[in-house]
Amino acid sequence: MIGVFDSGLGGLSAVKEIHRIMPWEDVIYFGDTGRVPYGTKSPETIIRYAKQDVRFLLTNRVDIILIACGTVSSTALEILRGENEIPIIGVVKATAEKASRLTENKRVGIIGTTATVKSNSYDKELKALNPDIKTMSVACPLFVPLVENGFIDGDIPYLTAKHYLEPFTEFGADTLILGCTHYPLLSGVIKRVLPNVKLVNSGAESAVHLKNILRSFDNGKKGRTHYFVSDTKDAFVRTASIFLDNELCGDVTEINIEQY
Amino acid sequence: MIGVFDSGLGGLSAVKEIHRIMPWEDVIYFGDTGRVPYGTKSPETIIRYAKQDVRFLLTNRVDIILIACGTVSSTALEILRGENEIPIIGVVKATAEKASRLTENKRVGIIGTTATVKSNSYDKELKALNPDIKTMSVACPLFVPLVENGFIDGDIPYLTAKHYLEPFTEFGADTLILGCTHYPLLSGVIKRVLPNVKLVNSGAESAVHLKNILRSFDNGKKGRTHYFVSDTKDAFVRTASIFLDNELCGDVTEINIEQY
Repeated sequence: MIGVFDSGLGGLSAVKEIHRIMPWEDVIYFGDTGRVPYGTKSPETIIRYAKQDVRFLLTNRVDIILIACGTVSSTALEILRGENEIPIIGVVKATAEKASRLTENKRVGIIGTTATVKSNSYDKELKALNPDIKTMSVACPLFVPLVENGFIDGDIPYLTAKHYLEPFTEFGADTLILGCTHYPLLSGVIKRVLPNVKLVNSGAESAVHLKNILRSFDNGKKGRTHYFVSDTKDAFVRTASIFLDNELCGDVTEINIEQY
Repeated sequence: MIGVFDSGLGGLSAVKEIHRIMPWEDVIYFGDTGRVPYGTKSPETIIRYAKQDVRFLLTNRVDIILIACGTVSSTALEILRGENEIPIIGVVKATAEKASRLTENKRVGIIGTTATVKSNSYDKELKALNPDIKTMSVACPLFVPLVENGFIDGDIPYLTAKHYLEPFTEFGADTLILGCTHYPLLSGVIKRVLPNVKLVNSGAESAVHLKNILRSFDNGKKGRTHYFVSDTKDAFVRTASIFLDNELCGDVTEINIEQY
């Protein structure tokens, strides 16, 4: 049983990839929709929330946890690992590895939430992989509300992307890490601003990494996914379709995450 | 002692007005910065959070509570009043009264969060005051993140305002209710889109209403304000200056709101 969690719905971009490459696996997803977003909050608050999220997943007997959230992966991974026996995987490592393989000019751009950029998590991982890589990071705090409110294309997301991303042209990045699992939904406008830059999707890369770790193979079963949220089911079902291409299959249950 | 609370920092626009018109009053402010925003969440979640916010303020022996939040005032006011002995005031009534006095053509526009617009709270209050008033409401879910991230003027807030507000021109509104205490910070771009429309500031109007209820008079003292937040102090101090014109005077304390 794979446990996956995120501050909200961005982690569904990882679930979508798990469904695509390991359709036989059972998944428990928790989205903290009652307290979303995390990325504009402090490390102390993010860590407190992430501990509750993990405790909740453990009550569902998951065997491994994927933190499908750039903010939590950047802020709380070591602490969560320190406190728990089962394997816990973040999105940073697999994403940085992919970017380090893709970049030709060794100039990698990183975008993420304010908390992610402040943590320097992707920079440290990239430089550990290859000290020659130069990085530049920009926090994009408006991207999550744009996506969650369905502003995926058009003038407003395009101008916002231009505002945040133009510095990468001068920097000369040939590769850009989408360091938040919401951001792949803005790939269209990001490509309009940076047409010659390769984009790395943190949710998808970490799903591939998870498959390698699990040595997961097709057992002929059809896996089941159960979604848990801390706001209402209705609110979740409405927005989840943006991420899952309308293929929301599985039950949805509301929980009170503050009790964990 | 006046208790004031909001989902985050928008309520500071009411505190600023309290300081201006009743500088002798003591204020306890709680901003739920660890769970902001409320306005995109469900009524059930908003009510649960608002009950905790009130319970926290009551532990500080406040005599009256101002809900300086359009979303909570629209969703939870009756429930909070039903459960508590002390007077609890929302922003809807005073704001609707001001708008009903200001409008000449009896066409009033209303903007607010998704939860506020769904509740029809301002519409009901306006029609109770004057059944001839016609209303039109638009939810503006991007306005709160724009303000909280400091996008107050320039192309991005202007285009966003244009996107949300153009329907009011065709509707012929001569008065617009800013039904969320964050929105006065966007008055500049709102006026660029709707230059001939009178704006009603819900935070300021409810502070005036509060003064009338309290029959508050200058006793020569200098009132004190204590701020409490559910995310860290540092994060609060950084953003609060946007709302308070850098006049943050008073202590700031972090609390764990989930314990209330």
